[in-house]
Amino acid sequence: MSSSALTCFQKCCPKVIKHYPFNQKTVPMDISAVNALPYEDFVNIFGNVVEKCPLITAAVWTRRPFTSLNALEAAIHEFIDALPESGKEGILRCHPDLAGKHLHSGALTRESQEEQTRAGMDVLSSAEASQMTRLNEEYKGRFGFPFVICARMNDKVTILRELSERCQNERAAERARGIGEVKKICRLRLQGLVLSDATNKL
Amino acid sequence: MSSSALTCFQKCCPKVIKHYPFNQKTVPMDISAVNALPYEDFVNIFGNVVEKCPLITAAVWTRRPFTSLNALEAAIHEFIDALPESGKEGILRCHPDLAGKHLHSGALTRESQEEQTRAGMDVLSSAEASQMTRLNEEYKGRFGFPFVICARMNDKVTILRELSERCQNERAAERARGIGEVKKICRLRLQGLVLSDATNKL
Repeated sequence: MSSSALTCFQKCCPKVIKHYPFNQKTVPMDISAVNALPYEDFVNIFGNVVEKCPLITAAVWTRRPFTSLNALEAAIHEFIDALPESGKEGILRCHPDLAGKHLHSGALTRESQEEQTRAGMDVLSSAEASQMTRLNEEYKGRFGFPFVICARMNDKVTILRELSERCQNERAAERARGIGEVKKICRLRLQGLVLSDATNKL
Repeated sequence: MSSSALTCFQKCCPKVIKHYPFNQKTVPMDISAVNALPYEDFVNIFGNVVEKCPLITAAVWTRRPFTSLNALEAAIHEFIDALPESGKEGILRCHPDLAGKHLHSGALTRESQEEQTRAGMDVLSSAEASQMTRLNEEYKGRFGFPFVICARMNDKVTILRELSERCQNERAAERARGIGEVKKICRLRLQGLVLSDATNKL
């Protein structure tokens, strides 16, 4: 969708934007449309780019205007990186287990549900599901936060292998690795909401 | 409920605790029961003591064990106080408008709905509702975050007066004032979930 069409969409359908909960789908906007959003709309639309952490999105609104998708992403990274280690662990703890009990209960956010389903987490064999449950528990018992990986960049084979391997790491390394994965997830979610810089220049 | 009864409740009804979303009611626990909670349960139960900011609760779990309700509250304050100013504004932006459009739409958290109703925000006269809407918009336009006040410590007369007066403040003062109100709200929500220190000693 072109920039002018998006601006038109925003002007003509303020109620659509106004009441858009972050758990529903929207169309990618250009960065000028993003910068024009009041904080309520910004938080509604971008509140889940970091899973269940609308505080981060709401904080970053202070930094607008953003020159590009990359600048918005950089502001989010900067906020995350400035948090104390407990805050980074807090972000990880807001993530659900992969292939956990909530995958079939409808309790996941729309984004998590889609990402886990795309990675095949909903069609594990009985043996794979048991292995995943066992390793998830081992990981959480060892580190005090869940295993986080960008499901859209992996499939069930690589996810199970990574989970098994990462159980052996040290806590600080896993905290950093988990936050790195949070940023990959955030990037992909942002790309579904904001036109990329190259597209904006067309 | 006594400490032993609560421990019994926790032992006998692990599923009740296990699946407790933070948007439902629970009974006050003693601090030892709080300290025994895995992070998932801790976040489910305490995730909304700061409105829509489970990140804060999830971060504070790192600091357990807590010696008392006051110690848990102090850990939350410490986390909030260490945030950059944008993060404090982010917390405020996670709060709904008082007497806003969501009060009658069912879109508020259980806690907000109860607190606003108790303060009479759902039974404003037409003139009061118009005044509230106008002042909320003026406040948000001036500061870029919503007017936050501990509704349970006020009624509609004091809320309207405070809103009117606080619209005249400077942004930094209002940010600090809003965070002070967030802490009062948090204290009351915590008291509904954890037995106070005095009670624990009985």
